[in-house]
Amino acid sequence: MKRFLDENFLLYNKTAEHLYHEVAKPLPIIDYHCHLAPDQIAEDIRFENLTQAWLAGDHYKWRAMRSNGVDESYCTGKRSDEEKFQQWAETVPYTLRNPLYHWTHLELQRYFDVYDTLNGRSAKKIYETCSAKLQTPEYSVRELLLKMNVKTVCTTDDPVDSLEHHRKIKEDGFGIKILPAFRPDKAMSVDDPASFNAYAAKLEEAAGVSISSYADYLNALKKRHDFFASMGCTVSDHGLEQIYAEAFTEAEAAAAFSKIRSGKSLGREENLKLKSALLRQFAIWDWEKGWVQQYHLGALRGNNARMLKLLGPDTGWDSIGDFPQARALSTFLDGLDKNNQLAKTILYNLNPADNELMASMIGNFNDGSVAGKIQFGSAWWFLDQKDGMIKQLNALSNMGLLSRFVGMLTDSRSFLSYPRHEYFRRILCNILGEEIENGELPNDMEWTGQIVKNICYHNAEQYFNF
Amino acid sequence: MKRFLDENFLLYNKTAEHLYHEVAKPLPIIDYHCHLAPDQIAEDIRFENLTQAWLAGDHYKWRAMRSNGVDESYCTGKRSDEEKFQQWAETVPYTLRNPLYHWTHLELQRYFDVYDTLNGRSAKKIYETCSAKLQTPEYSVRELLLKMNVKTVCTTDDPVDSLEHHRKIKEDGFGIKILPAFRPDKAMSVDDPASFNAYAAKLEEAAGVSISSYADYLNALKKRHDFFASMGCTVSDHGLEQIYAEAFTEAEAAAAFSKIRSGKSLGREENLKLKSALLRQFAIWDWEKGWVQQYHLGALRGNNARMLKLLGPDTGWDSIGDFPQARALSTFLDGLDKNNQLAKTILYNLNPADNELMASMIGNFNDGSVAGKIQFGSAWWFLDQKDGMIKQLNALSNMGLLSRFVGMLTDSRSFLSYPRHEYFRRILCNILGEEIENGELPNDMEWTGQIVKNICYHNAEQYFNF
Amino acid sequence: MKRFLDENFLLYNKTAEHLYHEVAKPLPIIDYHCHLAPDQIAEDIRFENLTQAWLAGDHYKWRAMRSNGVDESYCTGKRSDEEKFQQWAETVPYTLRNPLYHWTHLELQRYFDVYDTLNGRSAKKIYETCSAKLQTPEYSVRELLLKMNVKTVCTTDDPVDSLEHHRKIKEDGFGIKILPAFRPDKAMSVDDPASFNAYAAKLEEAAGVSISSYADYLNALKKRHDFFASMGCTVSDHGLEQIYAEAFTEAEAAAAFSKIRSGKSLGREENLKLKSALLRQFAIWDWEKGWVQQYHLGALRGNNARMLKLLGPDTGWDSIGDFPQARALSTFLDGLDKNNQLAKTILYNLNPADNELMASMIGNFNDGSVAGKIQFGSAWWFLDQKDGMIKQLNALSNMGLLSRFVGMLTDSRSFLSYPRHEYFRRILCNILGEEIENGELPNDMEWTGQIVKNICYHNAEQYFNF
Repeated sequence: MKRFLDENFLLYNKTAEHLYHEVAKPLPIIDYHCHLAPDQIAEDIRFENLTQAWLAGDHYKWRAMRSNGVDESYCTGKRSDEEKFQQWAETVPYTLRNPLYHWTHLELQRYFDVYDTLNGRSAKKIYETCSAKLQTPEYSVRELLLKMNVKTVCTTDDPVDSLEHHRKIKEDGFGIKILPAFRPDKAMSVDDPASFNAYAAKLEEAAGVSISSYADYLNALKKRHDFFASMGCTVSDHGLEQIYAEAFTEAEAAAAFSKIRSGKSLGREENLKLKSALLRQFAIWDWEKGWVQQYHLGALRGNNARMLKLLGPDTGWDSIGDFPQARALSTFLDGLDKNNQLAKTILYNLNPADNELMASMIGNFNDGSVAGKIQFGSAWWFLDQKDGMIKQLNALSNMGLLSRFVGMLTDSRSFLSYPRHEYFRRILCNILGEEIENGELPNDMEWTGQIVKNICYHNAEQYFNF
Repeated sequence: MKRFLDENFLLYNKTAEHLYHEVAKPLPIIDYHCHLAPDQIAEDIRFENLTQAWLAGDHYKWRAMRSNGVDESYCTGKRSDEEKFQQWAETVPYTLRNPLYHWTHLELQRYFDVYDTLNGRSAKKIYETCSAKLQTPEYSVRELLLKMNVKTVCTTDDPVDSLEHHRKIKEDGFGIKILPAFRPDKAMSVDDPASFNAYAAKLEEAAGVSISSYADYLNALKKRHDFFASMGCTVSDHGLEQIYAEAFTEAEAAAAFSKIRSGKSLGREENLKLKSALLRQFAIWDWEKGWVQQYHLGALRGNNARMLKLLGPDTGWDSIGDFPQARALSTFLDGLDKNNQLAKTILYNLNPADNELMASMIGNFNDGSVAGKIQFGSAWWFLDQKDGMIKQLNALSNMGLLSRFVGMLTDSRSFLSYPRHEYFRRILCNILGEEIENGELPNDMEWTGQIVKNICYHNAEQYFNF
Repeated sequence: MKRFLDENFLLYNKTAEHLYHEVAKPLPIIDYHCHLAPDQIAEDIRFENLTQAWLAGDHYKWRAMRSNGVDESYCTGKRSDEEKFQQWAETVPYTLRNPLYHWTHLELQRYFDVYDTLNGRSAKKIYETCSAKLQTPEYSVRELLLKMNVKTVCTTDDPVDSLEHHRKIKEDGFGIKILPAFRPDKAMSVDDPASFNAYAAKLEEAAGVSISSYADYLNALKKRHDFFASMGCTVSDHGLEQIYAEAFTEAEAAAAFSKIRSGKSLGREENLKLKSALLRQFAIWDWEKGWVQQYHLGALRGNNARMLKLLGPDTGWDSIGDFPQARALSTFLDGLDKNNQLAKTILYNLNPADNELMASMIGNFNDGSVAGKIQFGSAWWFLDQKDGMIKQLNALSNMGLLSRFVGMLTDSRSFLSYPRHEYFRRILCNILGEEIENGELPNDMEWTGQIVKNICYHNAEQYFNF
């Protein structure tokens, strides 16, 4: 009987223990995609209590609470922080086998040295202990990052963002690189004329450009792309149901743009053509600058209209879609590759039924120019757990080169999520350790160790030019 | 070397053995969805022999026999019961690794105390032993249910059913609750005007209502819904390829209804609108009464026209479809939730590629009002085996709360299928036991035991208000 | 710690070891689907060196090299064979966990008695050792087949092929049956009028028939089908994204044919109707002759236009598609079965998300006439590895009869691929051994051994009438 979450958690053989403790564990963390708030890092805030640090904004936890029959007032509502925490604590034992159960206890151990399990009875003590620590200078958000040996962080930022916080952080001489990432999802949201034009107005201001034509719009976005680059940005990101790869002409895209600018709704085809045109344009800019472009595909968002209206997006009403992915993805990547304009690319997919599709798709555009040029991204969102990670690692191994994988990222809004890297590393080491011990891999610890180091750190470092 | 199907079958660690034998095994069974024939329970019939009890109506076994090259005359044809049994027995060894192999031997052990394996050589003796037992009063169908510690059974009934057998069973004071479930699949079958109108005629008679308009039709169905409720029904069920969630107006639905009533075939859109209208209406009634609604999604039925013509539906010519599921499901559930009319709901899916989609979908509508309000149903039909169960349990655990799961059902036509609950419980206990022993869960036997009890019994009891 | 790839590779229990070494290993190989070049067997060529034998034409290896950042000149370009081999050898350690890693070392062991692992340092020695052996008479391609205990091989041939090489091999009295297989993919390629008509011209010559009508075309193809049969052919094969099962009339097919013959492009519907008509016609001929028909479904081919233009098809730019499969497959098979014209059929699928769909589909048309009449084919192409094989074996076991499975094939272009049968056999024996040892199967070694023999050899022998 192994102790719950002990030092050899998820490590089921001696080789795995060695690989994790001696090789993987000491490596710093590159978190090349997350949703941390740059202003909080700029101000180096401290959280008032564990509810603020843990529950505010964490829709994973809210979903679990709601599924457990907890009223919304304890999730996003007006209950006190103590009351909210108590409800969360009472939910935790019901999350057994959900990744939240592991994340929760890993985070209590790693950040707070708390080794008790969280439940209704231990809630008060744990809340007080952790909240007290959080109020100390040693638990400011910068210290939280330093404590986890983070070296580089890429946030996720809209093209209209001033990046003033990134600037401030850099000027402060903070030892961790906090870089922006270019995420133009709103710039492509052409479904609703009103909100599109509101966005265009913000873009005019941010870019200092008056936008009356499609060319102006591209010009303004390009200025922001350039500005992001000047601020150290080397990655873009897109959250999409599917890739848009309709055939279009520049004239069609410009016409559709003019139409929506005049306040009219686009027809289905105009809509797709404009999105396809923009997506392609962003990709070309990414290629011109040698950036890495990331595509997060397959989420079906905003399913619960009632709650969405109350709480807004990213509050826990999204799920996994079953969109066709292969054809458009192929068309899109091929359209770029044909002109030698295909940037380094990471494909993330949300429906694990598409894992093998994605893992084989990347091979079509790995042309020998860069090792691991096209990547099948780490298990994401709903798949960010042991099962999901193993499936992603296996699909990638079976259909591509695990050894060239750029590895884990948090994709998190929380400063307390960094043990997910540890989680990933343990799982990776366990897989390799097991196959060495059962004779499916040679007992070559030097080589395997190098592969572990590469996946946990060096591949990402090289790939992103950090 | 473990003995085949011994007392620790499927239990691979001490903790699992403890959880199963001490906690799960003694619990009674709630079979909240099955296809047992109420008349057979009302009459408390005894089967003449093992072929009658086991092979008549079991299309799983027929499929295996046909795949093994056995002529149809031994499946559904005129061969004698002895001959049929002999062919089945000779097929059994060829079913190794198919769930039939386990079901068969579990059923021989649990109902008949037969511990031999079934094959061509042991067939005669087993047939005679079991048939002799089946003819005794101790093997009447009521006794078979009592022997398995069944407490509640929900059958599956058409709205036009008189429920006379359910009434008789209740009046007899039978110790097991045998409740009806409302399954209006035929009421939604608007593909063929002739059979739809034949059904409407039956409904007129059952409801005592003349049906000349859509309003009449709804009124008649509502009467049956009310009647089912008066007979103790608390669940509905639907067998659908996909959810129908087309936008429709009441006027459109009424017009489509009038058209089909006049004997004309519906166009594709009319068809979908009428189905969508009916499906939504049923859901609203379910919500009004606090029922649980169940959706069985994803079967592609009646693939073999030649055999279907000979034998009718449910004779083994169905398989797993690959229908898009996410969008319509979301639209349908959201349309109800928006008006606060979403009943407790169980989603069953037949294509395991959609497991994660379903397991994440339920979270969109788990709003905190009831613990586990929206459920991802147990592995079903082709997935009702060890692999399928484990995948369902894992998807649910990873994306939702396993702890709130209402657990296993038989979905069977056979009185000998109850060991499937044992099978499920063993698998559940093994998973939890393994994770306790390897340190992925705390060694908290009280809590884990409570979770096991809840999943095996108490969650269903509460959820269905039995 | 087990030694890498030792004699008990992939065998993790004593029962598995016994089953493999005593039962499976000694059996000859039937390779009922591959892409070996008949002319090379006819001429009994010897390879000049290991690059020629291993790297020329192997797009699996090229994909791995490209993903590893190796320039195209080392894959398909003008580098010397030594240089190419060096690059491949340096890539091999990066393929850990990819099936190439296992194939590579298995092939070195089994054909060349080389037990070193291949990498940049060992490259030169291994290249020289193996190349020297390849130049000896003991390493001619016929000897390579004999060394692996191959008994029967089915190549893959176009209807216009003269089969002269097959004839020569037979006339030589070569001890291994080298049979043709009828693969009319080009005869169905009606997307481009020019290449279709060029093909029709070749067919006119091969069949000695002038083709001016659809009837002529069918007549010419039928002559080739008859000719293939006269040459010992008993199998056909089709590589398709999806099954084509549009409703069509003969008149529509004939009209579409005339149109494309006149050099005009077909509309989408004409295209599908003509393909559907041809596919159905081929199936009827297969049934008339008692052949086995094979459908390889689900590849998305030629994704990289730039490289496709440079290198042509089958050079590593294909991947896994997500086409809907169930409905058309059902319609197609049912249309044949309805008239009692459904031949023995093997369905191979490339997207593992469809495994259960396929494994349940076969049951719809297994009508008792032949044991295992409709087969779910072995894991294929991207799925041809341990994970893929296990998933295919499990899906088939869960939804059908593993015991009636016709087993493994290489589907390879390489004479060095035969250890894939060993790989499959080890995996099969391990699964069965494990379930015997853990009590999920009875400890009946005679029966289990018979099943192993059948899957590895006898089922295929009977099924194909070899």
